[in-house]
Amino acid sequence: MARNSFAAMHCSIARTLAVAGEWWTPLILRDVFLGLRKFDDLTENLGISRNLLTERLTHLVKAGVLERVRYQDRPPRFEYHLTEAGRELVPALMTLMAWGDKWVTPPGGPPAELVHDTCGNHFTPTITCSECGGKVTATTVTPLAGPGAAEGPGTRLLTLGRQAPPDPDPEK
Amino acid sequence: MARNSFAAMHCSIARTLAVAGEWWTPLILRDVFLGLRKFDDLTENLGISRNLLTERLTHLVKAGVLERVRYQDRPPRFEYHLTEAGRELVPALMTLMAWGDKWVTPPGGPPAELVHDTCGNHFTPTITCSECGGKVTATTVTPLAGPGAAEGPGTRLLTLGRQAPPDPDPEK
Repeated sequence: MARNSFAAMHCSIARTLAVAGEWWTPLILRDVFLGLRKFDDLTENLGISRNLLTERLTHLVKAGVLERVRYQDRPPRFEYHLTEAGRELVPALMTLMAWGDKWVTPPGGPPAELVHDTCGNHFTPTITCSECGGKVTATTVTPLAGPGAAEGPGTRLLTLGRQAPPDPDPEK
Repeated sequence: MARNSFAAMHCSIARTLAVAGEWWTPLILRDVFLGLRKFDDLTENLGISRNLLTERLTHLVKAGVLERVRYQDRPPRFEYHLTEAGRELVPALMTLMAWGDKWVTPPGGPPAELVHDTCGNHFTPTITCSECGGKVTATTVTPLAGPGAAEGPGTRLLTLGRQAPPDPDPEK
């Protein structure tokens, strides 16, 4: 229900959440990225019910984020691999991890560290501008209505302009 | 229930989801970032029930992501502002938006465009390495166990090493 209404919104955050925002889904993608690809390994590591995992995996395959690959013929056995779309979600998960490391740090400190293979350093994922390479923060970005902006819930706000939030309810 | 079990995991993605991963929450943060700060404006723009919005806002205030600010005394009226932790979540939302623009594009194209005030250009949020500035992708990063890695669900996997996923179930 909620998934469908999110998917229908004219908002790419909502539409991403309709694919990857359900409870458990980011952790399933994390585990597949970390190398757990089999159903039984995923249930065991996550402590998720088999029904729920089946539901989530089916949705992710249908959405094109995971693919189900047969790795053995007799008996047939399958594992789950990230697709290109799935691989592109991984850095976004890393930014959530970095936020959690800083703001809701688990006991003992960050549970995971990331090494950038290209340069060999431990690093923090940093969100930067594709044009100038500078850091992107909430206070250095202005969102504008794009070509798909609509009047419906989702991006109606953008068509009003960020600098001019709506007046308080006139009925008050 | 799920929220509590996620918060207890030794995983900074799970702990971030316990704060900001619930259904609707990223869209509430989006709207507050875009300048909608009042309860009635949020319910109207999101089409969310008042009970659910109250629950989500209370949780976000308690978690330190939003603060409730009195902007009028008689009668008392409140609005919601992003805290520093909340502002730091915004770029992560932008990476979800960019993924959605590309992989689940709404009809008509991207509903929003982002301008980087620092350089004045329309841009795509890009996830880069804090050390070398190079692009971070799923295939150029190696996750390692950090100081807070534990044997429990969440990061047990990291203690096994990414390059050596567990063998198939020996019972099979």
